[in-house]
Amino acid sequence: MPASRRYADPSVELEVGSAVIDLQLAHRSVRQFLDVEVSDAQLAAIVAAAQSASTSSNLQTWSVVSVRDPARKARLAHLAGDQSFVERAPVLLVWVADLSRARRLAARADVVVDAADYLESTLIAFVDAALASQNAVVAAESLGLGCAYVGAIRNHPEQVAAELGLPPSAVAAFGLAVGVPDPAEDADVKPRLPQGAVWHREAYDADAADAHLPVYDERLGDYNRRHGLSGAWSGRVLTRLAGIGSMAGRHTLRETLVRMGLPSR
Amino acid sequence: MPASRRYADPSVELEVGSAVIDLQLAHRSVRQFLDVEVSDAQLAAIVAAAQSASTSSNLQTWSVVSVRDPARKARLAHLAGDQSFVERAPVLLVWVADLSRARRLAARADVVVDAADYLESTLIAFVDAALASQNAVVAAESLGLGCAYVGAIRNHPEQVAAELGLPPSAVAAFGLAVGVPDPAEDADVKPRLPQGAVWHREAYDADAADAHLPVYDERLGDYNRRHGLSGAWSGRVLTRLAGIGSMAGRHTLRETLVRMGLPSR
Repeated sequence: MPASRRYADPSVELEVGSAVIDLQLAHRSVRQFLDVEVSDAQLAAIVAAAQSASTSSNLQTWSVVSVRDPARKARLAHLAGDQSFVERAPVLLVWVADLSRARRLAARADVVVDAADYLESTLIAFVDAALASQNAVVAAESLGLGCAYVGAIRNHPEQVAAELGLPPSAVAAFGLAVGVPDPAEDADVKPRLPQGAVWHREAYDADAADAHLPVYDERLGDYNRRHGLSGAWSGRVLTRLAGIGSMAGRHTLRETLVRMGLPSR
Repeated sequence: MPASRRYADPSVELEVGSAVIDLQLAHRSVRQFLDVEVSDAQLAAIVAAAQSASTSSNLQTWSVVSVRDPARKARLAHLAGDQSFVERAPVLLVWVADLSRARRLAARADVVVDAADYLESTLIAFVDAALASQNAVVAAESLGLGCAYVGAIRNHPEQVAAELGLPPSAVAAFGLAVGVPDPAEDADVKPRLPQGAVWHREAYDADAADAHLPVYDERLGDYNRRHGLSGAWSGRVLTRLAGIGSMAGRHTLRETLVRMGLPSR
């Protein structure tokens, strides 16, 4: 996979590389799957890769729930913005930011873990879950599987927690649909911002970085048109972040986390 | 790399695998580096891999600052809990949860992005940064490099932001020390919780999961002893999360984020 495709820029060429980096450059979100099972043996390898990611202070503040049951997948798909690919995926992995394990340890030892009350710990749990899940994605892709993240699993955290039987102090951070890619899907490598827009040397230079945005808007506009979508990047970012109306209910996440035993203070 | 080593359990064997998964299973945190440069060409490949990770709604709410300057590395090492390996690493990559790019877009377009004020958006930025950084770690390891995350970069977020010239609405989420591993370092594969402790099928089962903790405490206790450390897992988790005194100042992260233009409401 040439890096030029990742950047939609024929002039981009990497001077060093590896088979692993080629696999990563070829990543695309896959939302249509063949009617082929993902085996437990495959999931075991994927989970082992996920657990091999770094985790803050080895706290391992995450868990994962694998969902195959069609009725449960359908209910979760409904809760996650009625996205039908979630239901159609052979397996949905729900990554859980999980401070409940530490709280159970503390309860059994009759000690307090007051640090778990703070936003820092909620962030550790989300970041730990993200590091693990990204290792899972790369592992799955190395096995010929395809994936798509499901951020909309945060639209209704309490209902998702009830569906999965999550204990207090555990919340579904995001889902990951996994399956064998249907080659009929128009799943393509999405161009990203030029490196100069995100990579700063020694210090952040906003003007130099943002000078790359107009050409990216052109490239993503071209990509979107080819895939039947309208608009470029900047406009879509502004629409997505406009306000409460663009958040699918997630503006209440903080209060919801408090109720769920993640005070995030 | 056999999975049995990742779990410190000779009975664990994966039925499926790949060269990529073998690389992931072999991950270890590297904190001693040879006096060998990490080239900009290597960093370009690593950043391209990072950008190839998924990002929520293609918002790309992260940036990365590469630090080579010895004086700046020394100052950052001091801010990050006086960890000397941060200073000794040839390159420190600082991963930035970055909502400032969207805010600059909004300012130029004279529109609001009120969604950026919410905890949901702060979490998106941290998760985006984490997905990118984990791809970077796997890419770096595929090039023969070694890495260690530096969560302590959050001990003093405002001072780190000043050091790196971060604009408002951008915060260093974590650092990543990168270099060629010194084979003299006692860097080992750290055993993780048994899969049954973190992987739930269809629904979360706390009792079944936690039944795996005692044997893990034995295994990690053995590992710690071999590496000159005391204690097992549970005790270390409880100590690490005991309270404000165990947080190196990070209990104030929420107020700090508010001051930095990440209201996280």
